[in-house]
Amino acid sequence: MSAGQEQYTIGVDYGTLSGRAVVVRVSDGAELGSAVHAYEHAVVDTALPGTGEALPPEWALQVPEDYRQVLRIAVPAAVSAAGIDPAHVIGIATDFTACTMVPTLADGTPLCELPELAGRPHAFVKLWKHHAAQPHADRINRLAEERGEAWLPRYGGLISSEWEFAKGLQLFEEDRDLYDRMEHWVEAADWIVWQLCGEYVRNACSAGYKGILQDGAYPSTDFLEALAPGFGGFVADKLAHPVGELGAAAGRLTAEAAAWTGLPEGIAVAVGNVDAHVTAPAAQAVDPGQMVAIMGTSTCHVMSADVLREVPGMCGVVDGGIIAGRWGYEAGQSGVGDIFGWFVDNAVPASYAETAAAAGESVHEHLTRLAAQQAIGEHGLVALDWHSGNRSVLVDHELSGLVVGLTLATRPEDVYRALLEATAFGTRVIVETFRDSGVPVEEFVVAGGLQKNALLMQIYSDVTRLPLSVIDSDQGPALGSAIHAAVAAGAYPDVPTAAKAMGKVRKAVYVPDETRAQAYDRLFAEYRELHDHFGRGVTAMRRLKAIRREAVAGKEQS
Amino acid sequence: MSAGQEQYTIGVDYGTLSGRAVVVRVSDGAELGSAVHAYEHAVVDTALPGTGEALPPEWALQVPEDYRQVLRIAVPAAVSAAGIDPAHVIGIATDFTACTMVPTLADGTPLCELPELAGRPHAFVKLWKHHAAQPHADRINRLAEERGEAWLPRYGGLISSEWEFAKGLQLFEEDRDLYDRMEHWVEAADWIVWQLCGEYVRNACSAGYKGILQDGAYPSTDFLEALAPGFGGFVADKLAHPVGELGAAAGRLTAEAAAWTGLPEGIAVAVGNVDAHVTAPAAQAVDPGQMVAIMGTSTCHVMSADVLREVPGMCGVVDGGIIAGRWGYEAGQSGVGDIFGWFVDNAVPASYAETAAAAGESVHEHLTRLAAQQAIGEHGLVALDWHSGNRSVLVDHELSGLVVGLTLATRPEDVYRALLEATAFGTRVIVETFRDSGVPVEEFVVAGGLQKNALLMQIYSDVTRLPLSVIDSDQGPALGSAIHAAVAAGAYPDVPTAAKAMGKVRKAVYVPDETRAQAYDRLFAEYRELHDHFGRGVTAMRRLKAIRREAVAGKEQS
Repeated sequence: MSAGQEQYTIGVDYGTLSGRAVVVRVSDGAELGSAVHAYEHAVVDTALPGTGEALPPEWALQVPEDYRQVLRIAVPAAVSAAGIDPAHVIGIATDFTACTMVPTLADGTPLCELPELAGRPHAFVKLWKHHAAQPHADRINRLAEERGEAWLPRYGGLISSEWEFAKGLQLFEEDRDLYDRMEHWVEAADWIVWQLCGEYVRNACSAGYKGILQDGAYPSTDFLEALAPGFGGFVADKLAHPVGELGAAAGRLTAEAAAWTGLPEGIAVAVGNVDAHVTAPAAQAVDPGQMVAIMGTSTCHVMSADVLREVPGMCGVVDGGIIAGRWGYEAGQSGVGDIFGWFVDNAVPASYAETAAAAGESVHEHLTRLAAQQAIGEHGLVALDWHSGNRSVLVDHELSGLVVGLTLATRPEDVYRALLEATAFGTRVIVETFRDSGVPVEEFVVAGGLQKNALLMQIYSDVTRLPLSVIDSDQGPALGSAIHAAVAAGAYPDVPTAAKAMGKVRKAVYVPDETRAQAYDRLFAEYRELHDHFGRGVTAMRRLKAIRREAVAGKEQS
Repeated sequence: MSAGQEQYTIGVDYGTLSGRAVVVRVSDGAELGSAVHAYEHAVVDTALPGTGEALPPEWALQVPEDYRQVLRIAVPAAVSAAGIDPAHVIGIATDFTACTMVPTLADGTPLCELPELAGRPHAFVKLWKHHAAQPHADRINRLAEERGEAWLPRYGGLISSEWEFAKGLQLFEEDRDLYDRMEHWVEAADWIVWQLCGEYVRNACSAGYKGILQDGAYPSTDFLEALAPGFGGFVADKLAHPVGELGAAAGRLTAEAAAWTGLPEGIAVAVGNVDAHVTAPAAQAVDPGQMVAIMGTSTCHVMSADVLREVPGMCGVVDGGIIAGRWGYEAGQSGVGDIFGWFVDNAVPASYAETAAAAGESVHEHLTRLAAQQAIGEHGLVALDWHSGNRSVLVDHELSGLVVGLTLATRPEDVYRALLEATAFGTRVIVETFRDSGVPVEEFVVAGGLQKNALLMQIYSDVTRLPLSVIDSDQGPALGSAIHAAVAAGAYPDVPTAAKAMGKVRKAVYVPDETRAQAYDRLFAEYRELHDHFGRGVTAMRRLKAIRREAVAGKEQS
């Protein structure tokens, strides 16, 4: 690195509705400018663009040209906002939602960009939250369990309908002609890198967590053929491709991509990455024992370790899945901020909205302030935070939310606090499960929007008895990508070193108080009892879901 | 009865906040006029009138002069509204909240009316909802269980802190001087009759349900002395007094009371009664198998039978407790309408209030209309209706409310409907417990404000598989009292005969639909499982209440 001239990298974070580019100084990680570009077609979940063909329920597609537009618009805007000379940019890296899949020709052309296929739903990008492949995931899980496939325990015993194989099987069975014409089934995380550098390199994170690549192998031809005759070639024909380490360069910026972005041709383009995982180095949390929680509508927990353990109910463990050379663990809570949001939208009376408005607070802030005045346990409530099911450690989307302890004196702030606490208890179950499996957690590092709620953060620290650090950036994923770009460009020898220089964290902002921790222990004991009763014992919640489905179906028929 | 001239009786219903007088035609029960008078002092629960002395928590007192004012104001107003000549009134009867207790001198003067005692809280009327005698009730229950007192099973194994003995023991221990000066410990139901006719007659209903009079005997001197040394004489010195049958005359209207009311001196004054129980004849529901449910903020179930059975968890069984010559059974649900009211006040967002207002509906009506559009089970929820504890059949006020099955798609009308259903399931548990004990229920007769909710009524009929009849009067208790007045005056030979002529009911307004009943069976099975798990199995709800109490106490100390 030249002492005289600062160098910069670009991190681009592809979210569900927009892409954000950030210009970062390589020497210290300062974020100098950023720009966001919203996708023109957003999420295509009702009708196909162009033809207007209606989509079935649970579908969620995207248009790949929208991703290129982020490179053309947000990247130059970020450089301009930063006020730097683009000639001093030495690398670019991207992170993406996952598992988001693009069916392409051999050269990376998305099938939906072929005029004759533009009216075929399966030719488009399948966004992570396309959930129409649930029956396919169910079949994969059943067969894998029957056959005792060795990879299954690496994913807590269940693979998701969101992942590469479930979505691929759906495509195979619902549009065989298109499946046959598809030459690559590509993670969008890798497709955008391909657009930048002209090289297709699979990233280790997506391949491991979403592509079932374990110990160098995918599910076998034999397994796939047993799943669906003719599907046996899926891995060899569509999926398998050289894998790049996170932080490595996938290639160099092409002339075309240089023209889009205004960046110098030939700068380093990093191997792709996933939004949650790329955040760990942005928060300087790449060592064993540092659990990073990206807390927003849901929470994703990622942690590196030197050991391989099969932790019950996690989402996955992948070699080099977060940091090259370490085992990357992922767990999750399917509902967190969206439960608080649901409560505010559906269960808080007008008087609270009025009082909050008069005090210049949001309803969330108002409820939080009222809840903060309570002694622990004063509300007399315990809730289960399963309104969207339970991802870890029960891996059961048929579970549902519960509140117990309601009385005529129960107020909205009581239930709100019980819901905050329930998500903290859910995190404690995950932390304890990791510990009990030999993967201890020593620090809890928070990124994502919920870090703003100081009461929530203190509850998490007290409930888990862990020091709680907070990322010191509003653009964690983009900063994480910029760190990877710096490594890919050779400015640092590896991601941990770059993270130390460029990552930003406020350490131990919240520390546990033993008196409060003991008070929460009593409530957690109640949570744990409810957790095991409804999550592992009786199947009341599953039956209620079944009753609900039958009731809705019966109504539609009548 | 003279054919030429109609005769009338007056029924006076003493509620928690006001007294209501109704003029009723003896020949057919037509309600010709009514008037309400609100008690000047309402419920005294914060500070004593006059001295302003602060009252401890859980206290609830009343001022006896407020009851006399109802006679002076509401009775003449009702007669005037009816447009009848008071000379044609042949009797008056009253019903009262219970257990509401007045400490008096030998002549019935309330102790609080003695100037030197006007500053002593224990000199006032203790309203039914005075709950400060819970520790005293707990001691009575423990000792009775230890000693195997025969009367205990007649009350489902627990007597209430609201009743005569618990309130009496509190008075004995907290103001011994006043206890010693007290010459009678009188149910307000009997005290008001004493004011009307100058005779003190204990009514069979209060004496049995609230005074533990069973098989002609009260708890023994021995038991009372063991409870508290010196308390052994409580029954003999303060409580025991001749008991009158319901529907009998206690005496004749005195000149003084004739002056208050404008009614003829010497007309019949009926033995006192309790508001819930007196409603049964008003709804023509005095035969075995007819369960009357007075459904308001809470529900009281009363039913007569020819057999004596000890039904687990009922509130009491009393010989002649509803109708002379039959066993009167009482059960209850501590929270019904108040749970719906709590939900509307605390858990329904502004948008619903606005839409309801725009449609000219109350929020209750709006939620009910939305809930009525759902198929059974569509909301995917089951609730436990224990927000105020469970009176029957679990007799546990430490229980609390629960909702299970919540998702991010759960709307306010979903939870509202689940709460309506939960109260119906609670009723079904009571009905089944009676049946299983050999006291079958064949018809469900509803009185009280909740009869207006047709969805709720249909749910009750479907859930219980019982035809549901509805009282055809808005003034059930007062009409019931007027029926008793007619019997006391000799216009009918007994209450059942008078009920047939004067009571008003719409029979089988709601009948069960077998398809719906079967759909509810599945939800009831879930309710039953939760009921037994939380009500009889784990003690999570009790622990949460204990945690809450400790938290509040700790906060007050700090």
